[in-house]
Amino acid sequence: MTRIQLYDTTLRDGMQGEGMSLSAGEKLRVAHRLDELGIDLIEAGFPSSNPKEQELFTLLGAETFANAAVAAFGMTRRRGVSADADPALRVIADCFAPVCTLVGKTWTLHLDKVVKVDREENLRMIAESIAFLVGQGKRVIYDAEHFFDGYGDDRGYALRCLRTAADAGAETVVCCDTNGGTLPHLVSAAMTDVVAGLAESKVQIGIHTHDDAGCAVANALAAVAQGAVHVQGTVNGYGERCGNANLISIIPNLQLKLGYECLTEGQLASLTPTANYIAELLNFTPDPDSPYVGRNAFAHKGGMHVAAVAADPTTFEHIEPAIVGNRRDLLISELSGKGTVQARARDAGIELDDDAAAHVVARVKALEHRGYHYEAADGSFELLLRKETGDYEPLFRLESWRAIVEKRADGRVETEATIKIWVDGERYVSTAEGNGPVNALDRALREALVEIHPHLREIDLVNFKVRILDETKGTGAVTRVLLDVSDGDRVWGSIGVSENVIEASWEALVDALEYGMQGSRQVLGKASDA
Amino acid sequence: MTRIQLYDTTLRDGMQGEGMSLSAGEKLRVAHRLDELGIDLIEAGFPSSNPKEQELFTLLGAETFANAAVAAFGMTRRRGVSADADPALRVIADCFAPVCTLVGKTWTLHLDKVVKVDREENLRMIAESIAFLVGQGKRVIYDAEHFFDGYGDDRGYALRCLRTAADAGAETVVCCDTNGGTLPHLVSAAMTDVVAGLAESKVQIGIHTHDDAGCAVANALAAVAQGAVHVQGTVNGYGERCGNANLISIIPNLQLKLGYECLTEGQLASLTPTANYIAELLNFTPDPDSPYVGRNAFAHKGGMHVAAVAADPTTFEHIEPAIVGNRRDLLISELSGKGTVQARARDAGIELDDDAAAHVVARVKALEHRGYHYEAADGSFELLLRKETGDYEPLFRLESWRAIVEKRADGRVETEATIKIWVDGERYVSTAEGNGPVNALDRALREALVEIHPHLREIDLVNFKVRILDETKGTGAVTRVLLDVSDGDRVWGSIGVSENVIEASWEALVDALEYGMQGSRQVLGKASDA
Repeated sequence: MTRIQLYDTTLRDGMQGEGMSLSAGEKLRVAHRLDELGIDLIEAGFPSSNPKEQELFTLLGAETFANAAVAAFGMTRRRGVSADADPALRVIADCFAPVCTLVGKTWTLHLDKVVKVDREENLRMIAESIAFLVGQGKRVIYDAEHFFDGYGDDRGYALRCLRTAADAGAETVVCCDTNGGTLPHLVSAAMTDVVAGLAESKVQIGIHTHDDAGCAVANALAAVAQGAVHVQGTVNGYGERCGNANLISIIPNLQLKLGYECLTEGQLASLTPTANYIAELLNFTPDPDSPYVGRNAFAHKGGMHVAAVAADPTTFEHIEPAIVGNRRDLLISELSGKGTVQARARDAGIELDDDAAAHVVARVKALEHRGYHYEAADGSFELLLRKETGDYEPLFRLESWRAIVEKRADGRVETEATIKIWVDGERYVSTAEGNGPVNALDRALREALVEIHPHLREIDLVNFKVRILDETKGTGAVTRVLLDVSDGDRVWGSIGVSENVIEASWEALVDALEYGMQGSRQVLGKASDA
Repeated sequence: MTRIQLYDTTLRDGMQGEGMSLSAGEKLRVAHRLDELGIDLIEAGFPSSNPKEQELFTLLGAETFANAAVAAFGMTRRRGVSADADPALRVIADCFAPVCTLVGKTWTLHLDKVVKVDREENLRMIAESIAFLVGQGKRVIYDAEHFFDGYGDDRGYALRCLRTAADAGAETVVCCDTNGGTLPHLVSAAMTDVVAGLAESKVQIGIHTHDDAGCAVANALAAVAQGAVHVQGTVNGYGERCGNANLISIIPNLQLKLGYECLTEGQLASLTPTANYIAELLNFTPDPDSPYVGRNAFAHKGGMHVAAVAADPTTFEHIEPAIVGNRRDLLISELSGKGTVQARARDAGIELDDDAAAHVVARVKALEHRGYHYEAADGSFELLLRKETGDYEPLFRLESWRAIVEKRADGRVETEATIKIWVDGERYVSTAEGNGPVNALDRALREALVEIHPHLREIDLVNFKVRILDETKGTGAVTRVLLDVSDGDRVWGSIGVSENVIEASWEALVDALEYGMQGSRQVLGKASDA
């Protein structure tokens, strides 16, 4: 069966979406999850458009990926300079990434009205930029911007741009529906023409679509049906305006319905947790109605459906949900079954018998119903496992805490927290100031504990995310706090849920520190992926 | 040009979606908006499945619609009874609705495994139920459930079901992709066959799709391309699992890109407000990334885009946003220039001269450097503009506030906030409890202000998001709080940034309320599109 090359641009084109924000470290975690999912090419951005991107490429250069190659993104050379004298192309040539994706103009309207570049010069810009990078030992992908609009206005010129790129040594030429308004029948017709026109060359044909007409996924499929073998998209369809093509829908459509080869069975079964993990990192609520991976995608209402599904799931389900790591009904989590829980426990060096595993599954379900979500909170989950097996020692017993934040008449904000705890029969009372209530509680707690547990000094809170779970209730609703914590070697996550943001933060803080201390007291089987 | 009949099932199939809830009175408001939009047929549900549906049909029977006819929904008769003796068909026959939509089995798998009905009896159920209602003077639409799955398993039988319905007098037979997993090329192939097979009869062909493969819109378009002239869907794609086909995307695709006749120009220009209105009635945040009507659908970042759009909007926009009642959104970001700021100011009814605009740009840059981000905080941005032009009146002058959160020895968490403010030379001191510190501050502030500004009662916080901006500093880093606030008519966003999460929340809260009150104190040039 034809293999389709999967190209993820969440970290570049996806980041153009409203509210998309990831640190370099978080982008690295996304890249590893994409690699584990089985993505072939991960577009990471322009290697030095700003210090954050520079840091990302430095980090990426030091990593090893099992499946994926990293692609650096840039533009064809500027008008009137030679490719090797173009500073941006030089940056791409010098960066570690083995693959370079260059975007270039294809639509005469843009040549005439936006960049004001002559048609022949544009072709030279394409040819020379690609040839330069190929000469530097790079694999080059050419993204033909606005291809379908260009094809509609001036078919001959649009095809010449592709042919120029192919002749210059591009490995893949990608037809982009940059403005996203093209419908599937036009994608299909243009791609037939493209594939025929480039049949003599050995270049791969790719497709890059946007969802402005609600057809991004169908457009990608239409291109593949005509011979495209490289598909660009983003996780969950993130991207500017209406978003990019959603790889999380395209992959199972290609593999389960059209028989193309994309991922291994195990990788495909990680589709749902991967989609959710990346949503959580971005602090977005995973879309419950998302095809294949949404919490509602296999939700059945009404007894008739449920009975029919029990008799034969194909009566009301277009695929078996477990194939994509999803499950029937409402609760969705990586940890849905006993087997999964036992596997996770083994990773942490904990033996769980069947009864204990069933108990954990029931407890997780009850907690998820209250808003907990363990996909991004591995530290809290492991503590839950340890509590189940008795292999757990609390750091302290809480008597009480109090946090006060005050904006004074002179405009200064003062924060102070007091904690009262018991350790080994002794009472500790400690007060600290902080930049905010969680910081003050953190400091007060550490002040009390650090002499007994000096390892606490090495533990830093690296991220803190808050989300309201029932958005219709505003600040009175249930709050979920996710903390990421590091001791320099490892990063782990913890979670707290409460109506009160400070109480939820406290809970996540205590889990984070307790997990870190468990780690210092014994060797852990499973390190986090960061 | 071919006219396409638009059939909305938001009030029936759409209501199967998670969290969908409307009173009979609200459904009536939806029906009127659908009628004004130019929908031809409004499916309202089964006339007596419960008292709420009964009430709805009573209300609907008393209304007059300009464009739309109301359709009652039901199933083919039960096995082994005559149609006129079937109580459910009798209810439909007796209700005022001139159109009846009957759903019936088409897939042999369902006949064999779910309803256990013999194939010939199923055909009689279809024929007799339709003939009965036609005899009662109704226009009948036949919804062939699971048509595409049935066609794949037993083409001949699936087509016989349609032909039976046509022969019995159905005005329209609708091919339904009930489980939603069919891809466009299969819809296209089956519809070609259906249209050819029913060419001799005068029956209209319809299409009803679901989004389980992310292709519901493309599937509807594929069916129309093969000759379907009746399209079923829901507003915003609401519906169970992954939702129904989104009429709000399908309509402009058909009319603006494929040249079919659907709505008048004026009706099409009401598409965005209609989509937002129905979302608000359902208490859902309108999806900002929704094709055509989303807040981000025509959003432009970056100076190059903005300049190109100014030169020729077709360079970066697939349609002119005003055609569907949407508007171009120039996102305010570090990359924005004076032109963008002036355009945004004009939208808000504020005149900014060049100097003032340059001043705002410099101020936005400085604020964004500190972590502010105005893309999702239109309320805060407009206040910033008003402050620049002197067209700003604070709600109050703050003396001080204090929030205390305490976890007591008995495990209870208590939260209390006190504010001291000045309004018109008078000092107000107010204390309130809350579920968390922000909720308590919000309550204390409103308690002090609500007698002076009763409109504050109508303002609700609908969303609250917190992020740490410099993750390497953990809880001591800068915190960004985004609030979404609504007064029922409009939704706006505000932002606060501080090292202290409570101070950042306070800042966003004050902006949110001040913006809301600006709206009540004067007519704004720029109303939100909701």
